[in-house]
Amino acid sequence: MLPAPIAWGSGHTIRILDQTLLPAEELYLDLATVDAVAEAIRTLRVRGAPLIGIAAAMGVSLAIPDGQAGRDGRGSEELTAVLSACDTLQATRPTAVNLFWALDRVRTRAREVAARGGDLHSALVAEATDIWNEDRDMCDRIGEAGLSLVPDGATVLTHCNAGALATGGIGTALAPVYRAHREGRRVSVVADETRPLLQGSRLTAWELTRAGVPTTVIADNMAASRLRRGDITCVIVGADRIARNGDVANKIGTYSVALAARAHGVPFYVAAPRSTFDPATADGAAIPIEERSATEVRRAGGSVVAAAAAEVWNPAFDITPAELVTGYITDAGLLTREELGRLV
Amino acid sequence: MLPAPIAWGSGHTIRILDQTLLPAEELYLDLATVDAVAEAIRTLRVRGAPLIGIAAAMGVSLAIPDGQAGRDGRGSEELTAVLSACDTLQATRPTAVNLFWALDRVRTRAREVAARGGDLHSALVAEATDIWNEDRDMCDRIGEAGLSLVPDGATVLTHCNAGALATGGIGTALAPVYRAHREGRRVSVVADETRPLLQGSRLTAWELTRAGVPTTVIADNMAASRLRRGDITCVIVGADRIARNGDVANKIGTYSVALAARAHGVPFYVAAPRSTFDPATADGAAIPIEERSATEVRRAGGSVVAAAAAEVWNPAFDITPAELVTGYITDAGLLTREELGRLV
Repeated sequence: MLPAPIAWGSGHTIRILDQTLLPAEELYLDLATVDAVAEAIRTLRVRGAPLIGIAAAMGVSLAIPDGQAGRDGRGSEELTAVLSACDTLQATRPTAVNLFWALDRVRTRAREVAARGGDLHSALVAEATDIWNEDRDMCDRIGEAGLSLVPDGATVLTHCNAGALATGGIGTALAPVYRAHREGRRVSVVADETRPLLQGSRLTAWELTRAGVPTTVIADNMAASRLRRGDITCVIVGADRIARNGDVANKIGTYSVALAARAHGVPFYVAAPRSTFDPATADGAAIPIEERSATEVRRAGGSVVAAAAAEVWNPAFDITPAELVTGYITDAGLLTREELGRLV
Repeated sequence: MLPAPIAWGSGHTIRILDQTLLPAEELYLDLATVDAVAEAIRTLRVRGAPLIGIAAAMGVSLAIPDGQAGRDGRGSEELTAVLSACDTLQATRPTAVNLFWALDRVRTRAREVAARGGDLHSALVAEATDIWNEDRDMCDRIGEAGLSLVPDGATVLTHCNAGALATGGIGTALAPVYRAHREGRRVSVVADETRPLLQGSRLTAWELTRAGVPTTVIADNMAASRLRRGDITCVIVGADRIARNGDVANKIGTYSVALAARAHGVPFYVAAPRSTFDPATADGAAIPIEERSATEVRRAGGSVVAAAAAEVWNPAFDITPAELVTGYITDAGLLTREELGRLV
């Protein structure tokens, strides 16, 4: 049974699974304000490029206070509040492009509805629900597109979490795994733990084993040795942004895995919905890389582990050059670098 | 001020710095039995290939009970106890060859002294002290051999801990850094944290900053991005064993760094004393790789972080093929792969 990382809450709220507490605790929070959603995104209670887009779109609807929606003469005030909410949510994280894509859709829709004096709140809820449903469908199509890459007996190596917890559906990188598992194929996953925040050991291993997929956790620095061992069928990772030339921004450490996969001739796939593709970004060098707090590296499992006098460098993402990517598993099929234009 | 990870304790003991507690606590333990030394090596209270060799050699002397040394008629009993202690200590860890090398020296010496009815305890203490002093000298020579690789303004990336805490002197990988620092050169280090046991953030960052060398800690999976950034002068790592063909066994993750260094044209050096070179091992494939407890990966900073139902794979070392090694910084100078024979 796959977990639901997001839902409309009762009343005027959004219910999220607090992913910072997994796997120790499965706690759902009802968020009632735009700021609460922004905080949840910034602190990674909600994370994963597609899910961030969905959460932000849902979050904008909270800009219109409960009970006031649609009251006469408030159309322009409401639009101002909605656009301001979009700005707040847009500023939470700089790298994943789905966030900007989702908020652009919401802004466009809000302006249209406001212009014709429609019910803005209902329109925002509908738009966010559409984005969510479309993401679920995209995940299913990604699963289909990647199904042939995960034959019976396959072992897939993945990095970070690009599964159900990162999306509105069955994930991106994990979608082909879940589809193959549902087909009755024996599939297993090797999950990089993904320091500093351990999304691999905490989240990927949790959702996969919950769904009955045998999973082995390794430290990130073991991936190269594992790829040398010869029992990895392919690597599949997600993406936070894919540039026009096919360069991929994804969780820090992805690049390292791509280099090792190349060294051992193991195919390296990037799975992502079309909202991740950003033709406005020419290449990886143009993608801003979020640097997060030193505390994340200084600590492990809640304790301070690093010598106090040392500095820390903590980029949250890295760039994998297109030439290391065997193919892109997308909702428009399994694409080569040259075919990425189909996603526009 | 560099720390002293080992010393002869008062009375019939060996004093060690318990490295599992660093950097939070600087606790010294007095070990009085062979089993206590074996436990300290097995649990990594004492670690680092050269230091393990020294600790094991010192530990053998504890096989002869205090006050009984040299008593008439006990020569054969003593030799039996000494050889049994060697076996116990030899079984602690399988990968580092310095351990076997040091114990071979001790065995040979013990048999010689026993054969001529000499004072076995004094001879063992002397032999262990010789091994320790020689290691200190080797560290100094490694520092000299690598000094030219660390010019003013250099930044060295290292993995795990091959510093003062791993040896009887100023370290192996860190020896050129300490020498350059003493020359007044501005040198800094980027230290991989080195999961699962975090020897980089806990130990390397601790001893370097204590000695006044600016140090930046990164998660292991950030090394490739850092090497791409272009500010790393060279990579220097230690070794647990160097095979005849130049393949290197070192802490898990070393191979990954070597691949990334090669991808970005950054020189990759292995620093090690001659006791690390094992001409009896043809190549990396012949080196046994210790697999350690799943608990090490399941936990981080003392807390369980991995989903309970997941398996773990936890090899403690990996093999870096000789073709990725730019040079070997040894007590016999800076050597190419072809020149490794000089270490015999």
